[in-house]
Amino acid sequence: MKSQITNALSDFFFEYETPRQVLVRNRRVGVVCRLIQLGVLAYIIGWVFIYEKGYQSTDTAVSSVFTKMKGVGYTNVSGRETVWDVADYVFPSQGDASFVVMTNFIITEGQKMGTCPELPGKHTCSSNADCKGGSFKRTGHGQMTGVCVNATKTCEVLTWCPVEDDTYIPDPPLLISAENYTLFIKNSVNFPLFGVKRSNLVEGIDGLYISKCLYDPADAPLCPIFKLGDIVKLSGFSFEKIAKEGGAIGIVVDWTCNLDVHIKHCKPEYSFHGLYGNANEMDEVRTSMGYNFRYAKHYIENGVSKRTLLKVFGIRFDIIVKSLARKFDIIPTLTAIGSGVGIFGVATVVCDLVLLYLLPKREFYKNMKFKYTDTEVQNPDSEAGSMETER
Amino acid sequence: MKSQITNALSDFFFEYETPRQVLVRNRRVGVVCRLIQLGVLAYIIGWVFIYEKGYQSTDTAVSSVFTKMKGVGYTNVSGRETVWDVADYVFPSQGDASFVVMTNFIITEGQKMGTCPELPGKHTCSSNADCKGGSFKRTGHGQMTGVCVNATKTCEVLTWCPVEDDTYIPDPPLLISAENYTLFIKNSVNFPLFGVKRSNLVEGIDGLYISKCLYDPADAPLCPIFKLGDIVKLSGFSFEKIAKEGGAIGIVVDWTCNLDVHIKHCKPEYSFHGLYGNANEMDEVRTSMGYNFRYAKHYIENGVSKRTLLKVFGIRFDIIVKSLARKFDIIPTLTAIGSGVGIFGVATVVCDLVLLYLLPKREFYKNMKFKYTDTEVQNPDSEAGSMETER
Amino acid sequence: MKSQITNALSDFFFEYETPRQVLVRNRRVGVVCRLIQLGVLAYIIGWVFIYEKGYQSTDTAVSSVFTKMKGVGYTNVSGRETVWDVADYVFPSQGDASFVVMTNFIITEGQKMGTCPELPGKHTCSSNADCKGGSFKRTGHGQMTGVCVNATKTCEVLTWCPVEDDTYIPDPPLLISAENYTLFIKNSVNFPLFGVKRSNLVEGIDGLYISKCLYDPADAPLCPIFKLGDIVKLSGFSFEKIAKEGGAIGIVVDWTCNLDVHIKHCKPEYSFHGLYGNANEMDEVRTSMGYNFRYAKHYIENGVSKRTLLKVFGIRFDIIVKSLARKFDIIPTLTAIGSGVGIFGVATVVCDLVLLYLLPKREFYKNMKFKYTDTEVQNPDSEAGSMETER
Repeated sequence: MKSQITNALSDFFFEYETPRQVLVRNRRVGVVCRLIQLGVLAYIIGWVFIYEKGYQSTDTAVSSVFTKMKGVGYTNVSGRETVWDVADYVFPSQGDASFVVMTNFIITEGQKMGTCPELPGKHTCSSNADCKGGSFKRTGHGQMTGVCVNATKTCEVLTWCPVEDDTYIPDPPLLISAENYTLFIKNSVNFPLFGVKRSNLVEGIDGLYISKCLYDPADAPLCPIFKLGDIVKLSGFSFEKIAKEGGAIGIVVDWTCNLDVHIKHCKPEYSFHGLYGNANEMDEVRTSMGYNFRYAKHYIENGVSKRTLLKVFGIRFDIIVKSLARKFDIIPTLTAIGSGVGIFGVATVVCDLVLLYLLPKREFYKNMKFKYTDTEVQNPDSEAGSMETER
Repeated sequence: MKSQITNALSDFFFEYETPRQVLVRNRRVGVVCRLIQLGVLAYIIGWVFIYEKGYQSTDTAVSSVFTKMKGVGYTNVSGRETVWDVADYVFPSQGDASFVVMTNFIITEGQKMGTCPELPGKHTCSSNADCKGGSFKRTGHGQMTGVCVNATKTCEVLTWCPVEDDTYIPDPPLLISAENYTLFIKNSVNFPLFGVKRSNLVEGIDGLYISKCLYDPADAPLCPIFKLGDIVKLSGFSFEKIAKEGGAIGIVVDWTCNLDVHIKHCKPEYSFHGLYGNANEMDEVRTSMGYNFRYAKHYIENGVSKRTLLKVFGIRFDIIVKSLARKFDIIPTLTAIGSGVGIFGVATVVCDLVLLYLLPKREFYKNMKFKYTDTEVQNPDSEAGSMETER
Repeated sequence: MKSQITNALSDFFFEYETPRQVLVRNRRVGVVCRLIQLGVLAYIIGWVFIYEKGYQSTDTAVSSVFTKMKGVGYTNVSGRETVWDVADYVFPSQGDASFVVMTNFIITEGQKMGTCPELPGKHTCSSNADCKGGSFKRTGHGQMTGVCVNATKTCEVLTWCPVEDDTYIPDPPLLISAENYTLFIKNSVNFPLFGVKRSNLVEGIDGLYISKCLYDPADAPLCPIFKLGDIVKLSGFSFEKIAKEGGAIGIVVDWTCNLDVHIKHCKPEYSFHGLYGNANEMDEVRTSMGYNFRYAKHYIENGVSKRTLLKVFGIRFDIIVKSLARKFDIIPTLTAIGSGVGIFGVATVVCDLVLLYLLPKREFYKNMKFKYTDTEVQNPDSEAGSMETER
């Protein structure tokens, strides 16, 4: 019993089977098949390995973005001079990856709770019957009191009074000077799979350089300080248009890194994409609306709750970090090779089809390639005989 | 030398090797093997290619979301009528993808810095010794002064006074009318790999349509205007319950696009998922807590810093963009085919096992399939002889 | 015709081809090849299947995070005692996944619009000519009036006056007590592909437990209540340093779940990573800057718009949910097997190279493996003859 197992094992280890093959000496078939095989080989090496880098595994990053605006704006509305600084024009204030820079606004000061008529032209009424007391209109400003005000021909509502009048949007935008604001982006990325941590303040981008530089796609592609006007221009939008009614711009920080080369080549690339807000685009004509939101500052005057309502038109910046690191890995390499060998098998199948079904001498090749075992009709003896012949 | 290389090259190009095979004519083996092979083929074609679309490469989108609420709420707390508009009930105000709509609140007005006792029932004390001056309690409201107030039997603290009393949560929720607010979602997606940019305002969803439509899963599945009440109902929650103590709802915008067909079929699908906040769920019973946060409006009255504290109960909406675009690509196609050929090899291995180990005539087939080279025992001459016989 | 098809079909189904192979009885080749094959097998089973779990498909989660801070801070700036609670020190207030906890600040109270000189030392001037009226300096506080103020030797600007003086950062940080604040994280994840929904309040983490527990990597790794001081320490930063000038810390909630085992093993793991803000790090020396932003509270006093400006230094917490669920799936299993069979093919190729080119008896093995068809030189008759011999 023991010796049987030993025999089986030694048989297994000292034997080696390899397929028997027919070597077809035929110019046409040979050239066709070799070309197919070379094509498959070129595809596997050139495309899968070199172009798509199939020998590398990939990882995306965990990233953190911190932004900081600098610059002041100045408005002069009916003689009242105001200066706007970062605490006033950035929403939210804490330096998020997505934020809005106010470029235009409609201010309604001193609103207090009370009753006043809706704006002329909207929610018009001809009699009190049109203004059902206690009910709301979806786009109205408050709860209707049931009175139709004669002077404006609109329903009276309980709301913050006076009601905001946003029919006229200031043009040119009040804070067109936002063009000169600068944006500082701090971005750190972490590829956990490869244990690599990078910041957009790469080698050579130190405090001294940052204090003087300004991003330029050609001259200073790694400077993390951006002028808003440049960002908008690079995104293909017009600053004046987007500043008036607002819009959204995506700032993509692209970390595509090949970690098989030195880490210092792993640098961010910035690109700018208009998301919406420019009326030039076909899409926007359909549903032009810009980007705006309402923001209230509450205060108490003489014991009365009041608020200043701002309809803010602004540019929303979304900082989107795209990351893809690649590094040599044995698993995808072997998977690609294994898959390539499989595709090689396809080449053989194609050549065999040519050989066995298209060539004039196909019958000959068929006989060369195949050995028949007609066990259904033959008796064991003749089989043994054919075996004898074979050996 | 040169001719040697030429010979080797011509040999290489004009020759073609193909495996020699045994054609076993045996009903049982034939049927079994063909069925296995057909199964593998069906699997590769049906599952990998048709069902899982293994011939396509995939990409996820870079997306941007902008939201806008509309509607007004009305509260009448002890005779004081107040109207709440977008600037008051949405946090944050700038239209982010994640925001909170206030549905209930506990207001504490006119808080100013000073000393006052903690709420009765919490942080109770029997003597000054229980209230160590200068220290804090984790869930307390401020710094203890070292005094135990007799009237309330609680420690006196330095804090914003009076202390908020949040034992009673208004029921029904004060802003139950939030059910009628509408939410407008603007979402643009960008598949950088395929160079495709889409907005949720697809073909046919123009300004006119938007001004009138309201999302409905059956009748208006592409309308980007949603009634809050509908969203909550579709998420499986009860508006009244979630409005009272707050909760969170995920709005998934699903862009699953097959870019091999016309781009106009690449449309968003909206779905709504209750994340937490409904006491009906088993999970929530364990740790029922709703969703609330505190928010202060600061002001100065007669030179004294004061604040109005709001404990806001609200529904948090997280708009989650899921995207997956697929397009024909030669790499995954060939990888799938290569892998399929490999699996075909598995079929052959299985059939060979049947043929060589299970069939009664296995010895016969073994002899047909294998040629033995007993080089260890034979001398070169006899080998040459066996070769002769072979040819 | 019909019978022809039937014949072809029966031929197809009752026949089965299997490659003919040479069984080489050679110790050296046998051992080498078997070892290569066993190595490939071990790699496929050990690495691809067991280590990399190639038989599973993977999915990442849709997740929602809600945070809540607790604790009060106390400051005593020149005799003025103030208590800071959640509504005052967390930005934004609504419990987002990314938020800032104020740990230090520079307060400038009672600013109003007017003209005042810039801070001494910055934007210095020697005469009015250095301060061009109506223009701005990028890092200035407002619009220059054209006057050079003698007392400070700086340009006069129209801005919120008095100008903030941030040359001295309070040390030790005013709100160093932030160390004792606690952070509660509520996180729900949803793996849509597998239909699995989990919350970080897993089995056993109920209301009672939460009310008493505090996260500890060893003793309470599932408690969702974290002390800020612990978080900072675990991230490798020093609380005192980061509190002074601010910084950023990433809290990673890692959901790596094997769904082939019971769902209760799918638990979150918390880890803490210093993103930036600690001057000890090499990186930070280059561009030390901490984390700060400006925040204004507006109010009206005696009819005059005023604001309190806070330069907030704080710790930004980014809660990053990393998720990867794995479950057995037939597709990746078969792809891995197919690919493995392909790699087996590589083993055969390598062994054949050894057999046919390196061994001394290579010519003998070449003749065993290959059958030549010299069709170019032979005439059909002799071919037939060779065929006869073959059979």
